[in-house]
Amino acid sequence: MKISIIGVGLIGGSIALKLKQKNTADFIYGIDSNIDNLADALQLNIINEKADFKTGIESADLIIIAVPVDSAVKILPQVLDLISDHQTVMDVGSTKSGIVKSVENHPKRSRFVAFHPMWGTENHGPKSAVAASFSGKAGVICDREKSAKDALELVESVVLDLDMHIIHMSAEDHDIHTAYISHISHITSYALANTVLEKEKEEETIFQLASSGFSSTVRLAKSHPEMWLPIFKQNKENVLDALNEHISQLRKFKSALEKDNFEFLEELITNANKIRGILDK
Amino acid sequence: MKISIIGVGLIGGSIALKLKQKNTADFIYGIDSNIDNLADALQLNIINEKADFKTGIESADLIIIAVPVDSAVKILPQVLDLISDHQTVMDVGSTKSGIVKSVENHPKRSRFVAFHPMWGTENHGPKSAVAASFSGKAGVICDREKSAKDALELVESVVLDLDMHIIHMSAEDHDIHTAYISHISHITSYALANTVLEKEKEEETIFQLASSGFSSTVRLAKSHPEMWLPIFKQNKENVLDALNEHISQLRKFKSALEKDNFEFLEELITNANKIRGILDK
Repeated sequence: MKISIIGVGLIGGSIALKLKQKNTADFIYGIDSNIDNLADALQLNIINEKADFKTGIESADLIIIAVPVDSAVKILPQVLDLISDHQTVMDVGSTKSGIVKSVENHPKRSRFVAFHPMWGTENHGPKSAVAASFSGKAGVICDREKSAKDALELVESVVLDLDMHIIHMSAEDHDIHTAYISHISHITSYALANTVLEKEKEEETIFQLASSGFSSTVRLAKSHPEMWLPIFKQNKENVLDALNEHISQLRKFKSALEKDNFEFLEELITNANKIRGILDK
Repeated sequence: MKISIIGVGLIGGSIALKLKQKNTADFIYGIDSNIDNLADALQLNIINEKADFKTGIESADLIIIAVPVDSAVKILPQVLDLISDHQTVMDVGSTKSGIVKSVENHPKRSRFVAFHPMWGTENHGPKSAVAASFSGKAGVICDREKSAKDALELVESVVLDLDMHIIHMSAEDHDIHTAYISHISHITSYALANTVLEKEKEEETIFQLASSGFSSTVRLAKSHPEMWLPIFKQNKENVLDALNEHISQLRKFKSALEKDNFEFLEELITNANKIRGILDK
């Protein structure tokens, strides 16, 4: 199968590496407005050839859109305009309501399958791409009833080739869930980084004491705005819900401390400890 | 040198393993009110022998107190009561003002060196102990002017044997710094866990989507209240300062989102990204 990947960054690059390894892809075209990324992807054998937008799309059986979600909603209709009924299009965006809405009335809507692999890192670009990235992780397919049977089957086989397990849900549910399980984690990390950076202006030695605990909690704060600003923008209402809940949870800790209510503080900690049983099972 | 370790858990156990490996310790006594931990520590060759409080303390050149900080402030004066001027005592607690205050007028104060290794995990108990835990991390020694020269030199040589680099500061400064670089990370993680656990009551599938990003940010939420409740209690004022700053940083994200002020949101993210340069250098 010939595959075109629009956006040969961390996610697009990792998918390309894995699908080559699995022989799912015989040939991969790379389409990217960032010529450095294209050059890196070629050099790293992530793609076989770079292509312009039109040629790349017309030459592929499967087109994978792996650009930030604000670009994805603009690019998807243009891709559908160019394809035939024998071609399939999938995306990998972290928000799903916006992208399915961008093509809801498009005559080729059924050739598109909305997908989100639950994997990412704070890094970006093809140099960070790793073939094994997705193994064992969840691959979410949204609004499957809007996709043609053969398109859905093709994308599902690709997701299984990425060694992911498939979860189906509506785009709307996806965006609620990811606000809580992914988007809010990023805001928490960004805000924690800013908290400590603000304090560091007075206390210069603060980062000498950073241990692995701090590094772990703040890791996502390294994530780039090019990817995350459009996600927060598109999923604004759900992210605000999660953020309000998170601030109200933090206020419980504040209130318990202020009132020397250490029984309540212990209760809050013990409740949070339940995450161990859930994440480790 | 003979060493007694009071509290053969994650930290006490890891120190014991490392100091045996380095031949700093010829013989290690373990003192612990938890008999399971003592049995595990014996079986894992973390300690040579278990001892009762009095015998353990009188038999050792160096006594290391590695219990939660609420117990440490009670135990330290009792230990100093029992020792001679040829013995040295150190602790490993995550708060330092309380412990130095607990012995400020003790006649044996100068035999005590206040220490905090900047390492820990969300796990506990001797089974989680690892000899290499401390390598490359910061070891903070507080209020060194209050310790006798020979006691300080002994503890510094032990810290170097743990492969740590030594940082000196006052107990007061230590508690301000760790509130920001360590204690607040734990509250953030606990509150994030509670945020998602609260939402899960409505949305059962939410944890199926958990990726490594969420796991990383929420990892510290697995940490036990036995250790952390006393830390928050002892460092209440500094933790509240950090928590207030953190909530105010989160409110900036909330306000930017609510007002569709994406320029400000981008600024907040870009500022947080600076953490990459600081942590990776």
